[in-house]
Amino acid sequence: MQIAMVNDKLLPAEELESIYFDRAIYFGDGIYEVVRSYNGRIFALEEHLQRFANGLAAIEITAVNIDEIRQRILKAFEAAEIKNAKIYFHITRGSALREHSWDENLKPNFFLTVTELPEFSEIKAKGIAVSTYPDLRWKRCEIKSLNLLPNVLARQDAIKKGCSEAILVNENGLITEGAGSCLFAIFGKKLQTAPKTSNILPSITRNFAINAGKIIGLEIIEESLKPQQAKDADELFIAVTTKDIVGIVKFDDDVIGNGKPGKITLQLTEQFCSFTK
Amino acid sequence: MQIAMVNDKLLPAEELESIYFDRAIYFGDGIYEVVRSYNGRIFALEEHLQRFANGLAAIEITAVNIDEIRQRILKAFEAAEIKNAKIYFHITRGSALREHSWDENLKPNFFLTVTELPEFSEIKAKGIAVSTYPDLRWKRCEIKSLNLLPNVLARQDAIKKGCSEAILVNENGLITEGAGSCLFAIFGKKLQTAPKTSNILPSITRNFAINAGKIIGLEIIEESLKPQQAKDADELFIAVTTKDIVGIVKFDDDVIGNGKPGKITLQLTEQFCSFTK
Repeated sequence: MQIAMVNDKLLPAEELESIYFDRAIYFGDGIYEVVRSYNGRIFALEEHLQRFANGLAAIEITAVNIDEIRQRILKAFEAAEIKNAKIYFHITRGSALREHSWDENLKPNFFLTVTELPEFSEIKAKGIAVSTYPDLRWKRCEIKSLNLLPNVLARQDAIKKGCSEAILVNENGLITEGAGSCLFAIFGKKLQTAPKTSNILPSITRNFAINAGKIIGLEIIEESLKPQQAKDADELFIAVTTKDIVGIVKFDDDVIGNGKPGKITLQLTEQFCSFTK
Repeated sequence: MQIAMVNDKLLPAEELESIYFDRAIYFGDGIYEVVRSYNGRIFALEEHLQRFANGLAAIEITAVNIDEIRQRILKAFEAAEIKNAKIYFHITRGSALREHSWDENLKPNFFLTVTELPEFSEIKAKGIAVSTYPDLRWKRCEIKSLNLLPNVLARQDAIKKGCSEAILVNENGLITEGAGSCLFAIFGKKLQTAPKTSNILPSITRNFAINAGKIIGLEIIEESLKPQQAKDADELFIAVTTKDIVGIVKFDDDVIGNGKPGKITLQLTEQFCSFTK
């Protein structure tokens, strides 16, 4: 008899619901997205759906109808009646007995949650502290997959150090991005961030932050930074879907600027805000 | 209201069972093991439990009593009444609302299955074909975590090519190991495999294969191989918990030896077999 055990409970494996055989659990075999709404409107849904589709294609999860996913997201968002919502969703390759390779006919599983976002005005006014951590991730970071253990370990390290985000530094001593965000530095009228390669996620918020930078007259530099360069920046900020732009006021042990989010960071935040209306 | 959606079903998030919030799903935040039994006896359980404990410690899952895990494994194995069983088990950090960082008080989740292993005598007699694939994994491959998407993609590529296993080649052009196994090459009386670093899993079967090699008088060389060196080997084999030693007869497009598992491979298999009795 095929036996399963869930915590200390023994049971026939056939009695387990299909979620217990989801390939997300055994392999992290899925793609996720996070979108948010501002005051009742989902921001940049199409851009997120495009990246989601790209990720699914990259790992060969093929039997997904993106129109149907869009409809589900809109339906859930409407049902939740939350003005400033965080919408998390993922698709996994499906549920099957554990085996690395997959059956092409497997039916993908969809999962979504809608939760209320808090106000971020205080954190945006104060800024955040960040700390560096080695970038231990795999070589396809452009894929937003459910293999997130390195990000988890990095973030926990930051939290332990009293910081809000971990800034990942690769084996060449270059910053790639944050554990769950994109890092930007401002030098005079220049806005610098890492180039889009397979080392970083093609962040949607990064695109909007760059556009905001262009609008307020900044020169955009897509070049990786070293931690020391980041520390020497006039201003630093992270870009992330849930909070858009948040100033960094401490980088490891170094205070950035005058210890408050910088002027240009606040200008960019304002510009970004106009995109979301 | 906090809303969830499972496939096309909308429901209040509170109604979901805790498995839906398992951090394995969102982050692959857990450690797994596979042990097998030979004719009613679990092989090398203590070695696997030690590696399991090391993995849990490495990712800071602390509230686990290994004695209790051992008892659960033995209980499930006994209940299953399978002589040649594959026992898969994992521990995840626990179930919680999705957030990269974790609460130290989270209660870990344990999961296990016992399934029957098929006979491998035919595959062992014939040998297998393998194909190379880039090693896309993270930088802590010594940790047997649930982040297995690169292994999944590699294995599927091998299957598509009509092979049984993918041999991973890193950015330096060196073989690390298989997607779910360890690679060995035989040159004359020398047995060669990659050294134990954070690039490979500290395979238990690897240790036993090395011991078997020593017993039959082989010199052990722990040095990484290039694919071309592997192709030029007298014999090649993989070592893996479920099947112990399996000869490789084809490596990408090259036939190995005379296209059958080599003499020394079969001697090692026999020696290994004596360990399991």
